Amino acid sequence: MKKLLLSFALLLVSLVSNAEDIKSPKGNFNLHFNLKEGVPTYSLDLNNKAIVKESKLGFDIKTIDFGSLVEAPSLTSGFTLVDSKTSTFDEVWTPVWGEEKEIRNHYNELVVTLKQETTERVMIIRFRVFDDGLGFRYEFPAQKELTYFVIQEERTQFAMDGDHTTWWIPGDYDTQEMDFNKTKLSEIRGIQEKMNSSNVSSKFFSNTGVQTSLMMKSNDGLYINLHEAALVEYPAMHLNLDDKNMVFESWLTPDMQGNKGYMQAPRTTPWRTVIASYNAGDILMSRITLNLNDPCKIEDTSWIKPVKYIGVWWEMITGKSSWAYTDEVSTIELGVTDYTKLKASPKHAANTQHVKDYIDFASEHGFDQVLVEGWNEGWEDWFGKSKDYVFDFTTPYPDFNVVELRDYAKSKNVKLMMHHETSGAIRNYERHLDKAFQFMVDNNYNSVKGGYVGPIIPRGETHYGQWAVNHYLYVVKKAAEYKIMINAHEAVRPTGLCRTYPNLIGNESAKGTEYESFGGNHVDHTTILPFNRLLGGPMDYTPGIFVPINETNPENTSYVRSTLARQLALYVTMYSPLQMAADLIENYKQFPDAFQFIKDVAIDWDKSLVLEAEPGDFITYARKEKGGERWFVGRTNDEEKRTSKIEFDFLTPKIKYIATIYSDKKDAHYETNPQAYQITKYVVTNKSKLKQFVAPGGGYAISIVPVKDKKETKGLRKL
Amino acid sequence: MKKLLLSFALLLVSLVSNAEDIKSPKGNFNLHFNLKEGVPTYSLDLNNKAIVKESKLGFDIKTIDFGSLVEAPSLTSGFTLVDSKTSTFDEVWTPVWGEEKEIRNHYNELVVTLKQETTERVMIIRFRVFDDGLGFRYEFPAQKELTYFVIQEERTQFAMDGDHTTWWIPGDYDTQEMDFNKTKLSEIRGIQEKMNSSNVSSKFFSNTGVQTSLMMKSNDGLYINLHEAALVEYPAMHLNLDDKNMVFESWLTPDMQGNKGYMQAPRTTPWRTVIASYNAGDILMSRITLNLNDPCKIEDTSWIKPVKYIGVWWEMITGKSSWAYTDEVSTIELGVTDYTKLKASPKHAANTQHVKDYIDFASEHGFDQVLVEGWNEGWEDWFGKSKDYVFDFTTPYPDFNVVELRDYAKSKNVKLMMHHETSGAIRNYERHLDKAFQFMVDNNYNSVKGGYVGPIIPRGETHYGQWAVNHYLYVVKKAAEYKIMINAHEAVRPTGLCRTYPNLIGNESAKGTEYESFGGNHVDHTTILPFNRLLGGPMDYTPGIFVPINETNPENTSYVRSTLARQLALYVTMYSPLQMAADLIENYKQFPDAFQFIKDVAIDWDKSLVLEAEPGDFITYARKEKGGERWFVGRTNDEEKRTSKIEFDFLTPKIKYIATIYSDKKDAHYETNPQAYQITKYVVTNKSKLKQFVAPGGGYAISIVPVKDKKETKGLRKL
Repeated sequence: MKKLLLSFALLLVSLVSNAEDIKSPKGNFNLHFNLKEGVPTYSLDLNNKAIVKESKLGFDIKTIDFGSLVEAPSLTSGFTLVDSKTSTFDEVWTPVWGEEKEIRNHYNELVVTLKQETTERVMIIRFRVFDDGLGFRYEFPAQKELTYFVIQEERTQFAMDGDHTTWWIPGDYDTQEMDFNKTKLSEIRGIQEKMNSSNVSSKFFSNTGVQTSLMMKSNDGLYINLHEAALVEYPAMHLNLDDKNMVFESWLTPDMQGNKGYMQAPRTTPWRTVIASYNAGDILMSRITLNLNDPCKIEDTSWIKPVKYIGVWWEMITGKSSWAYTDEVSTIELGVTDYTKLKASPKHAANTQHVKDYIDFASEHGFDQVLVEGWNEGWEDWFGKSKDYVFDFTTPYPDFNVVELRDYAKSKNVKLMMHHETSGAIRNYERHLDKAFQFMVDNNYNSVKGGYVGPIIPRGETHYGQWAVNHYLYVVKKAAEYKIMINAHEAVRPTGLCRTYPNLIGNESAKGTEYESFGGNHVDHTTILPFNRLLGGPMDYTPGIFVPINETNPENTSYVRSTLARQLALYVTMYSPLQMAADLIENYKQFPDAFQFIKDVAIDWDKSLVLEAEPGDFITYARKEKGGERWFVGRTNDEEKRTSKIEFDFLTPKIKYIATIYSDKKDAHYETNPQAYQITKYVVTNKSKLKQFVAPGGGYAISIVPVKDKKETKGLRKL
Repeated sequence: MKKLLLSFALLLVSLVSNAEDIKSPKGNFNLHFNLKEGVPTYSLDLNNKAIVKESKLGFDIKTIDFGSLVEAPSLTSGFTLVDSKTSTFDEVWTPVWGEEKEIRNHYNELVVTLKQETTERVMIIRFRVFDDGLGFRYEFPAQKELTYFVIQEERTQFAMDGDHTTWWIPGDYDTQEMDFNKTKLSEIRGIQEKMNSSNVSSKFFSNTGVQTSLMMKSNDGLYINLHEAALVEYPAMHLNLDDKNMVFESWLTPDMQGNKGYMQAPRTTPWRTVIASYNAGDILMSRITLNLNDPCKIEDTSWIKPVKYIGVWWEMITGKSSWAYTDEVSTIELGVTDYTKLKASPKHAANTQHVKDYIDFASEHGFDQVLVEGWNEGWEDWFGKSKDYVFDFTTPYPDFNVVELRDYAKSKNVKLMMHHETSGAIRNYERHLDKAFQFMVDNNYNSVKGGYVGPIIPRGETHYGQWAVNHYLYVVKKAAEYKIMINAHEAVRPTGLCRTYPNLIGNESAKGTEYESFGGNHVDHTTILPFNRLLGGPMDYTPGIFVPINETNPENTSYVRSTLARQLALYVTMYSPLQMAADLIENYKQFPDAFQFIKDVAIDWDKSLVLEAEPGDFITYARKEKGGERWFVGRTNDEEKRTSKIEFDFLTPKIKYIATIYSDKKDAHYETNPQAYQITKYVVTNKSKLKQFVAPGGGYAISIVPVKDKKETKGLRKL
């Protein structure tokens, strides 16, 4: 009888119970889902400490009826829990390229099926709890009551447990090329109000809106990151902060009518991710974003290879050279303007001879590719004119001989890297896409740097709305048909799609090295980027500036907020399968010993470790090259003088290595003395330790090579 | 001295004179341009009677600076006349297809160059005066002070000299599929206010906005038509009426930000046209629209041929059959939904056997092509869902065998006509365009009916804005690369571009025959269309409905507002190089004698004449086939019983012809007795006359064939 009563009680409890808990495999994280009086909520603890307090879930939607939008009940309340399932997943997969050779995807999953009683609409939420955080997404199964609907807003909350410190940029529908602010959550509003008042044209959509990924640190040292994974056929998510209660809510990028996402069930949303640890390095080492993306969809990936490149680019960024062929006219019409009749500017850098010089240098120093910008008709009026038919991506200037350079590069075992600046004119780019890609194939190009500089055309759309998000992936998929790799600048910040489409080898979507030439980046910029921007995928940061800008172009008074040594470190700390030695080749010729590190550094890895990390202060990485035994260490610093303390216990035991350390001299300084670097060699083993001085805006880079011949160690001290 | 003073006076006069006059070649029209205190104006007289009273010209613009729009002085005042030139042009050109074999382009031209003093901006206005009216356009030459600008509104006025009667449809950015209203100008507002109050979702942009072309008739019997020609890279023009002063002003179609046209000088606008005559037939016979367009840009036009076709279409329009393959699902995903696993609806008409039946019929009766709608995946959820990836234009349903039908049609010397319904999803269509056209070529299609049913995607754009206008021409040009002819339904109403791109063989852009099935057209609809819609180019009106709709589909209670005889007449009165016998083939089999006219009627002409015409009442045309001696006469009627009185003086003298007259019986009526037709044969010569009864909603059709053998005349009366 007791048993019967107990069973009955349990039955009753299970009938009314609307709460579900699921832990990470190690048991440290707990995801608590709770349907509170029909309102779906979740919370996340780490070892019983709240990371995300009780937060609501759901959507405001409209449905579509004969082309018109119709009001519909919000998908935020009135639900019952009709089903819940748990499962476990544990698999190791191999990325085509990456920070490590293998990645483990291990999580416990909870799937709850909710039904809204009044509408009979079904919404599923899938939670995956990893040992370093949480990912969850919404799913709308095929159902009679809900097929075509339009998201007015996603109502996903992330309730923070305190006035955390955060490194943020303001929410914006078109750019991430902004400096990070480091403030308390409560201080965001004040900063944005100041920014708004000084810049009439750039009102933010909210004074407390921020972009993701968002990096935070609680008062008791818990690092928290919020982002999304697998952004497909959906607008990018910003976060809007209720700064009374410290609750973030998703704020999607609208289209020009204010609608946020056009959906057709069955459909899933991107994943929303919460990564947390008391160890900053764990954030950097988290692979949640990649793990939440679909496995690789490209069958044959043999043509996808990391690329180390130089380019005809920095000279234009600094203003020394021009993209445009001529100064004679300021407006052109493709197919009408006869460039052969115009006077070539001596500043036009993308000319055959100059490119050959770069090909020679690349060949001599083992670089794979040479980027050339300004090779094609259209640069005279490409920017700021809202020009639709702005480039055709296949017609070179008169001084750029496509065939000659194709053959010359081939003879030197170097490829040229294509450049497709779209100026944001998306329809124009898509109209030319097949011809542009075929042109690349015909001329031996296999990678392209794309750009979206300028407001998106169709006018009224933005860089981060569903329309543009759809476009970027369209380009990646079509490129794969032609076996072409994509490096898309000014596109939406990545969300791990490179797992599914590994030909997406790079993006920008943050302030990169070019901004050193436009007034300079914050000194600590590269100590923050890996915690924010790089969570979603690699960045084509294009470091490697050795020579002060005003030596490259005396008219440019901007300077690089970095020592030379730190520039080398960035090849290790700013992970990317695509790495540029961005400076002019004549500048590298001045420093062959330092340049040697760039030549040596690997760009694909078996293994990566974070040795030291504090967002906004410093990051030190150690990485082992893929398929080899060399290790590389890199350290990037903020504006403080610091001492880095690392141990080499990652090295293989009982093996001796030569470590070549490229570091700041004691008097190095990013502003006053950036070129003060030194190179020292040591013998190291896995027992070695290093205490290394790091200058303001400085860093160091180490290449660590196993000793082959005892003679190599002659005269070297041991660390 | 006197001479000197005179010269000096003339010099003074020419310096201050800001007026220019130019007459038509015959001297009947006078165009008066007058720069009144810096404000450009024009007026147009016909034999000293005002057609257009003094009307202003110009633009409100903004310029573009670094992507932002900047306020700029209007281009409406502050001008001086810096130059004026006159010239004459007289040329006969040969259209690839048309209402006549040759067209004379004869005008006097005045070009005035205006300079705005404060901005130094130059605006040119080019006036061409023909013997039947006026065309003028603006031109912005290459100039330093004005290159990239955005039209906020065009400020072209057409000041009417009275409260004319007008046949109009309301201004609208997405559709022309509306019934014409016949009212005074002063009554437009009242009608639109009523229309607005009954239809909440469809507010017009103005209560006195109307579309072009616009047909009017003054109180003293002067017919006036306003339209535009050569609409390229510019938004479509509507007219907004100041109904106090009876002054129309251009109202351009905006983009989603409210901007009206993105311009880059050097650039010209479309032509604005004013056609006028006391003879209604002269309006129909005016070739001003074609003459203002650029000559043919396609080098080899041998593949462009008029098409007479039947189709698997009307059965879906009436609801008897379905476009969709299956009823089993109401939502599909291209490439995911497996149609082979779904149950085919017995109503799916586009199946191999049924299409073969149509091919057989076409072959037997001498038709060139068979249109098939509903052949391709996607029809289950194509409409009203704002679906982006809605069709791929190349994947057939399981019951439509592309290759089998290709070969079968070829064996029967018939082509299939392709159908590309885009659902307004422009980007999706463009992404598939090359593959879709190549698919056509591979499968022996050379013409396609395109559709844009539904709101345009990118959402926020409209059917008539610059964005869509650019798209339609992009499709026409690309089609020409594949030697494909275009018949674009729901696109912007044509403006004579078929002269430049004669592969544009048809458009819709008005209520067509399909509306007979959706509630019926106005009885007099086809007596108005040629005065409005057809001024810009042919319409794929798809007439030829013989059998009441409720016999084709008992569930459809709509009926055709037309007698059968009038349906035959439409092949003559609704000029088009593309003519469909739209009814079901089984319906034609019931009336082989009447159907004979459709088989016989030509679709390309040496010569055309208007015998009788009054907008809204009746139109009678006579046309001579191209390269032959047969004539065809057609008469379309309004809701009144009428007697048509025509003379056959257009026939070649001294030749006898057999005239077969397909006419209404005395008791015929479009509603109660539409199938009451009779066929009578006569011998006719150029001295013959005819008095022919025409029923309400009726008409008659006559084929006139030279007698070859006297035996033919046996037993026939002579007219």
